[in-house]
Amino acid sequence: MLKLALNREESRQIDTIAIHEYKIPGIVLMENAARCAVNCLATENLALNPQRTVYSHTKGNKILICCGKGNNAGDGFAMVRHFLLLSFEPIVWLFASPSDLTGDATTNYEIAKQCGIPIIEFQDDLWNEFEKTLAEANWVVDALLGTGAHGAPREPFAEAIRKINAARKSKQLKVLALDLPSGFDVDTGLPSEPTIKADVTSTFFSQKTGFLQHSATKFTGKVYVCDIGFPPQLVKK
Amino acid sequence: MLKLALNREESRQIDTIAIHEYKIPGIVLMENAARCAVNCLATENLALNPQRTVYSHTKGNKILICCGKGNNAGDGFAMVRHFLLLSFEPIVWLFASPSDLTGDATTNYEIAKQCGIPIIEFQDDLWNEFEKTLAEANWVVDALLGTGAHGAPREPFAEAIRKINAARKSKQLKVLALDLPSGFDVDTGLPSEPTIKADVTSTFFSQKTGFLQHSATKFTGKVYVCDIGFPPQLVKK
Repeated sequence: MLKLALNREESRQIDTIAIHEYKIPGIVLMENAARCAVNCLATENLALNPQRTVYSHTKGNKILICCGKGNNAGDGFAMVRHFLLLSFEPIVWLFASPSDLTGDATTNYEIAKQCGIPIIEFQDDLWNEFEKTLAEANWVVDALLGTGAHGAPREPFAEAIRKINAARKSKQLKVLALDLPSGFDVDTGLPSEPTIKADVTSTFFSQKTGFLQHSATKFTGKVYVCDIGFPPQLVKK
Repeated sequence: MLKLALNREESRQIDTIAIHEYKIPGIVLMENAARCAVNCLATENLALNPQRTVYSHTKGNKILICCGKGNNAGDGFAMVRHFLLLSFEPIVWLFASPSDLTGDATTNYEIAKQCGIPIIEFQDDLWNEFEKTLAEANWVVDALLGTGAHGAPREPFAEAIRKINAARKSKQLKVLALDLPSGFDVDTGLPSEPTIKADVTSTFFSQKTGFLQHSATKFTGKVYVCDIGFPPQLVKK
């Protein structure tokens, strides 16, 4: 029987089983994750703005997707298409070099570029610009670090996290974290310095061990468990 | 400005633009199509059984997916995982040889096989068996022929269509067609002999020219336009 909450190593194993045992292409899992996460945000946005329908988000629903370089970033790039489908206005900040990206993350980065939305590659002299983008955004998607990350976030992720948290504190900005809030330890449930404070976390396949800690909610916000197109009942152990 | 309804050639061009211009892997488009079509069926099933939730379909919600050999069949194979995720019980009848399948359809056929659900390869002496499966099914998914097909369905598709229509007429069996009812001409809106009579059609990306004919509804039933993860506003012409 499958455990209800998975730790870092078990999360990795789920991907391995889906991809290597069931031969589901990684990009298919990524697409499901991205699609579901966009639906979470759309649902929450409707909840926040009950007078609107999803299709009326033609103005003011600006989404700032902050990407690192792993598969978490790949999910973020894939979300671009699904945001466009729901008439959101996505913009991407990439806190890595495109050449750091690999595999499915590269594929979705290239597609996002083709979609013609702004993709800004972070450089050290762009922090002011980043703060301006934060000031204009209605939602931030935290696609910086995933379950694979260990320890305190390094620069420039750490500064990006601090600026996102500060912006969230000062205005009506909502944050959706992919898989887990960047900086949060998926095994222990302990935050690093700094750690994203999210309003919503779209975690994939199952709950995570660290989320069961009472103090976790302060960082995860409301947790949605999103499927990745891989039925849990297929996992035997 | 994009036309509201596409014909056969335009439908083909949309796939070409998404895959070759935007570099979206075909299997990503297929996954979105399959996921959306399963959601259509789940929605309709709830409408038919208002006292149930999606997750209570653990008994009696048997889905018979009838596959041909094209990408329509690939959508059908991909639906297997999404049906399992919603606790439906899918079974596949393949009206072709697995060696006739190609590309993304093969990939999803292999995954569906790994999922351990029954996949029956049609042979001429199995028509009685097919009728028994129809008698036990609550829904049939018509994944026999897609928008690429021309003219009257050939055997064994023609006989499969006749038997599906007969079963639908005689009992509480519902039919969901993928993209269009098999046998229906997407350009003219005229049915061939035979043509599937569907309760629901999940068509992809946009409406189809033939569906605008008044007589089309008799074959399509209720039409849902499902997105394939490719934003229509990206199509310039």
